[in-house]
Amino acid sequence: MLRLRDPIHGFLHADPLEAALIGSRPLQRLRWIHQLGFTFLVYPGAEHSRFSHVLGAMHMAGRVFDNLVAKRPQLLPEREKPLARRLVRAAALLHDVGHAPFSHSAEDRFEAGIDHEEMTRRLLASAEIADLFARLGDGLELADVVALLAGRVSAERRFLAQMISGELDVDKMDYLLRDSLFCGVRYGVYDLDRLVDTLLPVVDPESGDTGLGVEAGGVHAVEALILARYYMFTQVYFNVTGKALEHHLTEWLRGEGRFWPCEPERFLEEDDHSTLAAMRRSTDVHARAVVDRRHFPLAFETREHPSVAERAAFEAAVPELQERFGERALLVARSAKDPHRLGTGRVLVVGDGGSPEPLERASDFLRHLSRIDVCRIYARAEIRDEVAAALASRLRG
Amino acid sequence: MLRLRDPIHGFLHADPLEAALIGSRPLQRLRWIHQLGFTFLVYPGAEHSRFSHVLGAMHMAGRVFDNLVAKRPQLLPEREKPLARRLVRAAALLHDVGHAPFSHSAEDRFEAGIDHEEMTRRLLASAEIADLFARLGDGLELADVVALLAGRVSAERRFLAQMISGELDVDKMDYLLRDSLFCGVRYGVYDLDRLVDTLLPVVDPESGDTGLGVEAGGVHAVEALILARYYMFTQVYFNVTGKALEHHLTEWLRGEGRFWPCEPERFLEEDDHSTLAAMRRSTDVHARAVVDRRHFPLAFETREHPSVAERAAFEAAVPELQERFGERALLVARSAKDPHRLGTGRVLVVGDGGSPEPLERASDFLRHLSRIDVCRIYARAEIRDEVAAALASRLRG
Amino acid sequence: MLRLRDPIHGFLHADPLEAALIGSRPLQRLRWIHQLGFTFLVYPGAEHSRFSHVLGAMHMAGRVFDNLVAKRPQLLPEREKPLARRLVRAAALLHDVGHAPFSHSAEDRFEAGIDHEEMTRRLLASAEIADLFARLGDGLELADVVALLAGRVSAERRFLAQMISGELDVDKMDYLLRDSLFCGVRYGVYDLDRLVDTLLPVVDPESGDTGLGVEAGGVHAVEALILARYYMFTQVYFNVTGKALEHHLTEWLRGEGRFWPCEPERFLEEDDHSTLAAMRRSTDVHARAVVDRRHFPLAFETREHPSVAERAAFEAAVPELQERFGERALLVARSAKDPHRLGTGRVLVVGDGGSPEPLERASDFLRHLSRIDVCRIYARAEIRDEVAAALASRLRG
Amino acid sequence: MLRLRDPIHGFLHADPLEAALIGSRPLQRLRWIHQLGFTFLVYPGAEHSRFSHVLGAMHMAGRVFDNLVAKRPQLLPEREKPLARRLVRAAALLHDVGHAPFSHSAEDRFEAGIDHEEMTRRLLASAEIADLFARLGDGLELADVVALLAGRVSAERRFLAQMISGELDVDKMDYLLRDSLFCGVRYGVYDLDRLVDTLLPVVDPESGDTGLGVEAGGVHAVEALILARYYMFTQVYFNVTGKALEHHLTEWLRGEGRFWPCEPERFLEEDDHSTLAAMRRSTDVHARAVVDRRHFPLAFETREHPSVAERAAFEAAVPELQERFGERALLVARSAKDPHRLGTGRVLVVGDGGSPEPLERASDFLRHLSRIDVCRIYARAEIRDEVAAALASRLRG
Repeated sequence: MLRLRDPIHGFLHADPLEAALIGSRPLQRLRWIHQLGFTFLVYPGAEHSRFSHVLGAMHMAGRVFDNLVAKRPQLLPEREKPLARRLVRAAALLHDVGHAPFSHSAEDRFEAGIDHEEMTRRLLASAEIADLFARLGDGLELADVVALLAGRVSAERRFLAQMISGELDVDKMDYLLRDSLFCGVRYGVYDLDRLVDTLLPVVDPESGDTGLGVEAGGVHAVEALILARYYMFTQVYFNVTGKALEHHLTEWLRGEGRFWPCEPERFLEEDDHSTLAAMRRSTDVHARAVVDRRHFPLAFETREHPSVAERAAFEAAVPELQERFGERALLVARSAKDPHRLGTGRVLVVGDGGSPEPLERASDFLRHLSRIDVCRIYARAEIRDEVAAALASRLRG
Repeated sequence: MLRLRDPIHGFLHADPLEAALIGSRPLQRLRWIHQLGFTFLVYPGAEHSRFSHVLGAMHMAGRVFDNLVAKRPQLLPEREKPLARRLVRAAALLHDVGHAPFSHSAEDRFEAGIDHEEMTRRLLASAEIADLFARLGDGLELADVVALLAGRVSAERRFLAQMISGELDVDKMDYLLRDSLFCGVRYGVYDLDRLVDTLLPVVDPESGDTGLGVEAGGVHAVEALILARYYMFTQVYFNVTGKALEHHLTEWLRGEGRFWPCEPERFLEEDDHSTLAAMRRSTDVHARAVVDRRHFPLAFETREHPSVAERAAFEAAVPELQERFGERALLVARSAKDPHRLGTGRVLVVGDGGSPEPLERASDFLRHLSRIDVCRIYARAEIRDEVAAALASRLRG
Repeated sequence: MLRLRDPIHGFLHADPLEAALIGSRPLQRLRWIHQLGFTFLVYPGAEHSRFSHVLGAMHMAGRVFDNLVAKRPQLLPEREKPLARRLVRAAALLHDVGHAPFSHSAEDRFEAGIDHEEMTRRLLASAEIADLFARLGDGLELADVVALLAGRVSAERRFLAQMISGELDVDKMDYLLRDSLFCGVRYGVYDLDRLVDTLLPVVDPESGDTGLGVEAGGVHAVEALILARYYMFTQVYFNVTGKALEHHLTEWLRGEGRFWPCEPERFLEEDDHSTLAAMRRSTDVHARAVVDRRHFPLAFETREHPSVAERAAFEAAVPELQERFGERALLVARSAKDPHRLGTGRVLVVGDGGSPEPLERASDFLRHLSRIDVCRIYARAEIRDEVAAALASRLRG
Repeated sequence: MLRLRDPIHGFLHADPLEAALIGSRPLQRLRWIHQLGFTFLVYPGAEHSRFSHVLGAMHMAGRVFDNLVAKRPQLLPEREKPLARRLVRAAALLHDVGHAPFSHSAEDRFEAGIDHEEMTRRLLASAEIADLFARLGDGLELADVVALLAGRVSAERRFLAQMISGELDVDKMDYLLRDSLFCGVRYGVYDLDRLVDTLLPVVDPESGDTGLGVEAGGVHAVEALILARYYMFTQVYFNVTGKALEHHLTEWLRGEGRFWPCEPERFLEEDDHSTLAAMRRSTDVHARAVVDRRHFPLAFETREHPSVAERAAFEAAVPELQERFGERALLVARSAKDPHRLGTGRVLVVGDGGSPEPLERASDFLRHLSRIDVCRIYARAEIRDEVAAALASRLRG
């Protein structure tokens, strides 16, 4: 049993298959992918990699699973429990291997138009991973992990898929606390113990699926999780400087016609450092902006929740500005995020009696948490004031 | 210089006057008043007293003051700064001395219909306190402290009064963190450093007063403070068991015709332990409920944010129930709190340019945080089910 | 299952028997016994009671037990494990019920010369506790708890007794962290997770007993625990003011011929508040010293580790001083503690190969941690300087 | 004023010169040097760079300085204080710029036999740094920073040099807490607030220098700092795997005849990632050991505090083993560290009266903290058992 120390969760344990997966190239590559892209250039402590995050997600998967079966011993047949536990831990460990350099910074620049989920699937299909499952799987099938990551799971095991990707998934349980700690902020801190303690499996009367729900006493803990995420987006993930650097990366890739490879062996060569090394060799204006940390200054930004009119005026202004100043002289950044996915995936709240009710009904203010949708324009220093003036006259005039 | 350790703020310092005030009887009495009334019977860690809270509030007053004058050196004439600092610290230290046993639990049971603010004024008028100011005041006048506590302060010093009582006062800066720590919860945790760092004095263009405002970058820190308070109310301060015990205390006082004395010397004799000792000697049903920790069970409660109709139906039902079952067999608990006071006291946000705007305009969701207004009925165990049924048929029928 | 929040351990759980024991009078009385006696008068945050400590000790007992059986599944027969777990948790919960008011402050003033362990036994023999075990024991016998508390346990279950009282017991695992948190210090902070993770059962080749040992990798974690305790004694528990107040309490009891009752029903009436109430009614100089917080000032103290000669000179001086100034005018405080009990109870360290070795051999500097033995004399303010001069001429002359 | 968030210290501030220095190439290069070399391969969280450490050291320098002048207002003439404060902060910020890739891992492989202190001096002599001081120094001279880093300072300012390098320097004040946090351990946690609060300037009666001393009440805080460092060395910095990787790096450099450049422009090109990239291109056995994370397994290690005889036997065995198995098949690692420098630099303790005494006299057990001196041999996997057997027969026979 491998034991590791973690700043968030204390001791982490890994069984032989997990330890071998941790040592595999797709996982080790994550050591060289910053969890928060360029954020470390703004928050100096944010030097943590996606590697430590997936270890934490694996740990949380085991912890949530143990809690669910302790509460509902009939949730799964006794003999299936150990395997289901290993399944969900393996899925959490592997769910991020397809991430491009700098994580989400330029994730739409994969060859062949694939996304990072598809890249994850391709990496899991490699011989290296398949061999580890064959040798050390001890009953756990790689195919089941892949299916779980894709959300293909029986109705009575829907909660396992939701633990990996859903409103209450172990991904955000880990990253909110981890990113807060390393950034040195408290926006992402919520009450993990309380949350875990109040989760429970619930049969959705509409779909018949056994999903991940919460006791009535845990509604505020879920609200706090959702708010923590909301604040991390507005304060950290959508930080004005970090977003500029991301767009410079994307523009550099676009300008040089570069894509992240979609073939596993070549993909494994690409990480933050190989990318930075290539940018250092480039004379492109966007590469230099990143390397020399002289990003285009901000010319304009909307509020976090712009009105429909403000949004429309912004969209109308962009092509004009691009025409007038040239596309390469501007960065257009639209940073949008829904504060939760309650519209698409139900979280049910189980009260003392009666039937479960959807979270958005049980929680008064979650309904009022509106979509973040900051639109920004950055411009080359020489024309920044001109662009700002042009936009101001259009949008505020 | 007296040095004390504090679980929240680390080292606290007190100058000779402050040290003497800390040693005075009105302050020492606060050691025997639980900060959170009966909450320690629900959250075992909540054994902290109001004494340690006022030390923390004094500390925060100095810290906020230092930050404000560092940001705006012209805020006060140089030679007035040390005195203004001592003024606001003394006010924070003394602001709670008039609290009745068990803090807010039965605060409407003062003789002569006074409240705890009036009781504070009477204690401050005592010879003991006056003597300390006379001997050790070194320029600080007791009258100025009393005036500040009453909010009587010049327009250009309005921020000093708001530091003691206002949306961003040092009282809640301290108690949210303190109560969370001792209860073992995280609901009240917010980013104190960020908040203090973004406060600044603002001249309100409407009133001309120099009040306590916040930089645009601190809006989320203020939101977090307000949310922390909101959650502490719903999860801890309005806890169903704690509220029952509070009402038993009030009913015992009422039943025996007891009041908290409004004369200082007699008031100083009254604390949680003298009160509990008296309850232990009583055979009254409400006294026994507290002493034997067998409070009336809950028969009914509304949601945290009941509809107008639900609230009205509840109010209509109460007299009927009291008639039918007897007033002494029921506890009627209405626990209401506004999540902020933005309606009555403006907090201004200072952006990069233009004029300051009110916080409720700068913050999208503070507008949507609605008033907590839980109504509950507890009933003697023998009739609890009957009461519950009666209410259910009225309110849900 | 009762769930409680705790500032140190997060969520605590209690089964029906445990919940009923928590509600019993001997346990509830502990709410009114300060965990650290008069320390709250020096460290304002130290208002916590022995009640929350025993909840934490119970929690730690379960956690350590689970860890031991996870590491050594053959440690106990499968069917005995649940009962052994409940046994050690119940013992941890009940181990402190016999504590006198103000905990250790005046623990030698029991009637009939009994000590607090004997008082614990008498309380456990009461009908109230016996009834709870009879109704809710579900296989757990009160007699087994009493035997475990007395250390009467079979050789292969020696580790259970050591978990309750020994170098690595759950008592100090809890109190060091708890006392540090509430005092606002860090002296008592050690790495609990690491410690628990490295404990394991070891058969002592000398005695044949299965005791509580530690992996070689955990030696430093144990050293840290022992150091944490050492520092808490020198910095907090033996604080100069706290010790003065303890001796005033003892002297008051002695002067008035008072003893703590050894009969359970009367003992249950005695707590910190009944004691303080009695002191408030007294005109005795020692009672006044506590009530008015005007303890005798310190006239002299030795170093923490005095030389044999210094110690002897002190002991020789005491009767002379008592003769000259009168016993009632002095407080003689000898505060001694061994930093560990390794001399009397072996802790074995299990390395990679070979036989286990005693901790004091595996740890270089534990051997050098010497006994704390501070001797102090406090004297009435009027004669303090005279006493100090007399001692200085004797001890330093 | 630049504001940065830090996981350890909260908000950090930087004035215009400091901000410009932070943006300079020598400082930015530290982003790409792991603070703890290869430790992140053992403790996944230890991904932090030397960059965030020097920001923290700068912050601590200001904090300690402010505390010293608050305690001893006559310490420096009033008009010199702001400049002295900026001096010591700049020195702390710049003190580590000469570190080689992977920090201490292979710090003896500089060209021309220089060390990292000399490299620091060369970088500070570069035009980039000189220009920043010339433009933004506002009275602060680069030459004074260089002199302070070299310890060339007047007798009455000796404490400034000791703050940068000495038993109580801001370097270790920061790194112990930082490394503990990121590793997820508690070994390095000590009471920073207490330590800072008890530091004070002391004139050494022997040398006449004004050095950094401590109040008697702070002796335990200093002991805790020294112990924290001791534990971090034994548990983290001298970790068996991390040390193997360091020696593989050194052996690779040696094997390929590589050195860290001593010319500033070339040196600035060298960081952890350029080094790893070069190792990835190499087929050398030691480069592969690092890149593929397959270090030579441990064949033998002494205790942390070996006896003289054990140490001598080890030294005698090494050449024989190298002869027999070949130097390239073995790694010989001698990891030695004194737990403090009290032998060479005095720390004086100031008691209530009388003259200051050296710390090692005031602290009982610091005298007993012995030098760590672990000697290890790692060997290629194929011969590891043979090497282990050979050593065992020599050293334990």
